[in-house]
Amino acid sequence: MPAANPILIPELRAMLAEADLPGLREVAEELHPATVAEFTAGLSDDELWRFLDALAVARQAEVFPYFPMIRQVELVQAGDRPHLGALLEWMAPDNRADLLRELDPELVEEILPLVAKAERHDIRMLLSCPEDSAGSLMTTEYASLPADITAGEAIARLRSQAPDSESIYYIYVLDAERQLVGFVSLRDLILAKPTALVADLMQRDVISVRVEEPRDRVVEKLARFDFLAIPVVDDRSRLVGIITHDDVLDAVRQEATDEAQRIAAIAPLRESYLEVGLAAMTWKRGVWLAILFATAAVTAMVLAKSPLNHAWLIAFIPLVIASGGNSGNQSATLVITALSNGDCRLSDWRRILRREFVLGISLGALLAIPGYLLALVYAPTPAQALVIPLTILAVVMLGALAGSVLPLLFRSIGLDPALMSNPFVSAIVDIVGIVIYTCVSLVLLG
Amino acid sequence: MPAANPILIPELRAMLAEADLPGLREVAEELHPATVAEFTAGLSDDELWRFLDALAVARQAEVFPYFPMIRQVELVQAGDRPHLGALLEWMAPDNRADLLRELDPELVEEILPLVAKAERHDIRMLLSCPEDSAGSLMTTEYASLPADITAGEAIARLRSQAPDSESIYYIYVLDAERQLVGFVSLRDLILAKPTALVADLMQRDVISVRVEEPRDRVVEKLARFDFLAIPVVDDRSRLVGIITHDDVLDAVRQEATDEAQRIAAIAPLRESYLEVGLAAMTWKRGVWLAILFATAAVTAMVLAKSPLNHAWLIAFIPLVIASGGNSGNQSATLVITALSNGDCRLSDWRRILRREFVLGISLGALLAIPGYLLALVYAPTPAQALVIPLTILAVVMLGALAGSVLPLLFRSIGLDPALMSNPFVSAIVDIVGIVIYTCVSLVLLG
Repeated sequence: MPAANPILIPELRAMLAEADLPGLREVAEELHPATVAEFTAGLSDDELWRFLDALAVARQAEVFPYFPMIRQVELVQAGDRPHLGALLEWMAPDNRADLLRELDPELVEEILPLVAKAERHDIRMLLSCPEDSAGSLMTTEYASLPADITAGEAIARLRSQAPDSESIYYIYVLDAERQLVGFVSLRDLILAKPTALVADLMQRDVISVRVEEPRDRVVEKLARFDFLAIPVVDDRSRLVGIITHDDVLDAVRQEATDEAQRIAAIAPLRESYLEVGLAAMTWKRGVWLAILFATAAVTAMVLAKSPLNHAWLIAFIPLVIASGGNSGNQSATLVITALSNGDCRLSDWRRILRREFVLGISLGALLAIPGYLLALVYAPTPAQALVIPLTILAVVMLGALAGSVLPLLFRSIGLDPALMSNPFVSAIVDIVGIVIYTCVSLVLLG
Repeated sequence: MPAANPILIPELRAMLAEADLPGLREVAEELHPATVAEFTAGLSDDELWRFLDALAVARQAEVFPYFPMIRQVELVQAGDRPHLGALLEWMAPDNRADLLRELDPELVEEILPLVAKAERHDIRMLLSCPEDSAGSLMTTEYASLPADITAGEAIARLRSQAPDSESIYYIYVLDAERQLVGFVSLRDLILAKPTALVADLMQRDVISVRVEEPRDRVVEKLARFDFLAIPVVDDRSRLVGIITHDDVLDAVRQEATDEAQRIAAIAPLRESYLEVGLAAMTWKRGVWLAILFATAAVTAMVLAKSPLNHAWLIAFIPLVIASGGNSGNQSATLVITALSNGDCRLSDWRRILRREFVLGISLGALLAIPGYLLALVYAPTPAQALVIPLTILAVVMLGALAGSVLPLLFRSIGLDPALMSNPFVSAIVDIVGIVIYTCVSLVLLG
């Protein structure tokens, strides 16, 4: 179970100082590229380039994408240009596109002429895919075959394609127009008689995604069918790339973090928590705190006008508001995660609202009981104390409804439910909650 | 891009009525098992068993795990016993264990004797692995080879192992004691000369997990190294199973939803949003709402004792509390997601607290400005209005610190930071916030 070994850094420095190229190469060849990237992370940019220089360019290109993205960008800015050109030519197309997307466009234009023409074309194609589309996740190196050859010939051809394919375990079968007509797994080819035709072995029911399909659809399909990779086609069903399981896993993990952060009203960080600069973090949190503050200011203004003037009623304000807010927060999070999971769809809105209505009543009733008991302690009479349970019931129902309606509403007009819902749910519950509280008090207390 | 096709249900029913077995078999063989499970979901339990009966048992065992877990359980309860025994024997060990884990233990004891002895042993081993451990995710069907054979012999042996292995793309190399000594990919075997020895082709730096390692460590390793599967070893380094990429992806998606729900104070649902019964949902939400309610009750009691008696000060109570709560919610979510991502560790606590302290000051200052402007409108004098910005500054800092300290504290004593932190952060911020507000008012207003 090897992992980062910080003891190695002084050793590495000594090997660099002695220019012990065979030693460096051996270390880098026998370990997984992720491990190599990890234990060399402590080197300075200059040392790291010297280390990479000791390796064959193919190995450099394998190790490089395992550095954190901000380090990759730093290294590109510090590296010399001809070296970069070679490295980019050898990198997998998807890793290369991910890196170039993070660079200053001027720097990209400066680097691109150093890359061979065919690769340049490939880079421009991948860079033109919109963020969060299937195209932005795909690689253009895949294994493909025609349908009219035998399993034996297919394996022989794969031997020559393999070094250039990210995955040779799924092989896509194309017709003369490069349209996707089937796929066959390497397992099937190995198990088949060498004389069997690919056309007879292949599965014709190919599940694919279109290049412009959103990322979450890609995730859902790959996860549902347990694929190693999913093919990406253009609008004429021609194969343009594949998306592999590892990139989907990375996308899901990133998406989960982004979504949890959006629900807590933080603009997605893009970098890991400890790496984000304080100014960026202040901005990403501050902008949402300011919006939430504005809604709280409305609450304050409403409350300033409210004739709630008994000390015991005032003491219950935070409790009443919090009950509605917590219930709203639960509903909104449930609906947001269910929508992004595919557990429910926009068209289920009637069922969702019916559920949340019933849940709002039962949860409200549940909280109304301790609310009444607590109010009995502070209210002058048991009849007056009824203000609290009635308000709690109403506010918890309000929270459940606002928490389910808003994500559905935002999704239906194309906004991100995760980022937009919770602040608005809080705002509505706070403001309307104060109004309900005031009205119930006026009716019961006169 | 085929998907669920509800039009097929009447056709299927017609085929079942006519007992058109070849027709049913053809439909089920030519589509992906996930698609078969999806378009037959509308059949009744009885119809579905008749449909499955038409298929070869190997195909039944492929389709079955693609039904939602609650449907699988329903089908087992409705199915006849001998049939179940055969189906379980053919199911992949991990899918089978997942299903048996959901069944009533008495039912499991009733079914187990129907399964062949070797499989029974395998089932008991997998069922004994603790939930959320590597063992609970693994399958016991993997491809393995000794080191002293050639690539050509290896491929020939794989041909006979393949039908029993979930994945033949990674082949694990074992010594005579079944200890894991290396691994080789099918790609390497295919590319190698048929006479090359496996010992010379294999990678000796094998990254594995121990059977009792927690699930999130498995996810982190598989994701870091981009593996198709990761081997699982016992305490004597013997290979006991593998965990495949698709099960990790499912685990990550489930974990992400669970975590978002825990952060919003909902006990994990285990089923999809629309499938959870209303009683279960009321319980899973109500229990946390009740805990949050108890903390809000403390806030009410503190506020009842507080000498805040100016109407304008009272109007600002929700705003002051919300500012601290929102900042605390952000900090807690950031620290929780960073901890569960591996973006930071418990040992980073000094850095985290330092960051949150600085952020608390800057965000507090940011909100203090509009807070002061708003207070100027309602306070009798500009000097008295200073109560609001000073309190906001203190409460936002309090939120940032409580939001970062509590997840770290809970993690350090072995509790789940996601479930425990936010309610406690809210409670602390509300109660201490009221105290701070009262103190600042007393100092400035006398």
